[in-house]
Amino acid sequence: MAHVSIIGTGNMGQAIASVAGKGGHTVQLLGRDDAATAVTGDIVVLAVPYSAISQIVTARAAGLAGKTVVDITNPLDFETFDSLMVPTDSSAAAEIAAMLPDSVVLKAFNTTFAGTLAAGSVGPLTTTVLIAGDDAAAKSELAAVLASGGLKAVDAGPLRRARELEAVGFLQLTLAANEKISWTGGFGLVDQA
Amino acid sequence: MAHVSIIGTGNMGQAIASVAGKGGHTVQLLGRDDAATAVTGDIVVLAVPYSAISQIVTARAAGLAGKTVVDITNPLDFETFDSLMVPTDSSAAAEIAAMLPDSVVLKAFNTTFAGTLAAGSVGPLTTTVLIAGDDAAAKSELAAVLASGGLKAVDAGPLRRARELEAVGFLQLTLAANEKISWTGGFGLVDQA
Repeated sequence: MAHVSIIGTGNMGQAIASVAGKGGHTVQLLGRDDAATAVTGDIVVLAVPYSAISQIVTARAAGLAGKTVVDITNPLDFETFDSLMVPTDSSAAAEIAAMLPDSVVLKAFNTTFAGTLAAGSVGPLTTTVLIAGDDAAAKSELAAVLASGGLKAVDAGPLRRARELEAVGFLQLTLAANEKISWTGGFGLVDQA
Repeated sequence: MAHVSIIGTGNMGQAIASVAGKGGHTVQLLGRDDAATAVTGDIVVLAVPYSAISQIVTARAAGLAGKTVVDITNPLDFETFDSLMVPTDSSAAAEIAAMLPDSVVLKAFNTTFAGTLAAGSVGPLTTTVLIAGDDAAAKSELAAVLASGGLKAVDAGPLRRARELEAVGFLQLTLAANEKISWTGGFGLVDQA
């Protein structure tokens, strides 16, 4: 069993906690403003908006050393819904990895809405979480947690693929904001015909 | 009924021709090296690899004036499968639009494999074609052709969203090349729960 800490109690944090709990894993759920409680998990999910990341990561850098840190953000400019707030040749995940050189940073969960994580399905498909990162063991450990919680997990490649995952998340958010899809829908992944 | 010209007789060109044909539209299918035959369609699909675009567009610029030109490319570096061949703040579609100032350029089809276009489905879902462009009427006309051919079409926003569509296509190609998904699978779009 894994021990998963989740910082952020919004709909994404709650949905991820629910998945880990279904799988029988130990879950620590921390408010984003709780800087006093040490993270106890080996996997730490930063389930907060991109705008809150820098402060949390700076304050908790020592406590996150040696752990797997999961970035779920979509660094969208929510005023315009028309661009990301990271340079076009970078990603939120790359920025977080640069801030946490002693942690293993993974990108995951940003291409699935909270509703489809909690439900375990997107339409007729099992919800698939795409995971990017440079540490195969860390990706496998997170994938095992998700599989035990009833989801599919797919290795999307190295951490630099976070740029493409963030583009998927961005596109999906614009589709929902423009009512082309519902917040309980979105992209599903079909692995076979 | 629309009149659709398709330049390129590979698996994507054939699949798009099949969809348009199913919808009862007139289809002109031209080989990519055929520079002599004039395009007769109001919608012209450039169903060729990105590396072949520049030569075709340059040779046919006058004939494409006043028409809707559909870019379906994924400008992937196929040697490395690790980056796109367009600047990170641009897209193949933006480059083509710059080369064709007298045409209406749309981005479409690059997020669906040929197999799912031809089949009309990706797993249990109807295949969805995402269309980006700055001309609402042109997008609607293409969407109507696709709907009559049995597919779903979703307006993905302005032509600058092609950057995100190309990221989706890039990611999907890497997933298939790494055998995480099959070439008859890929991303499907669920609009409702």
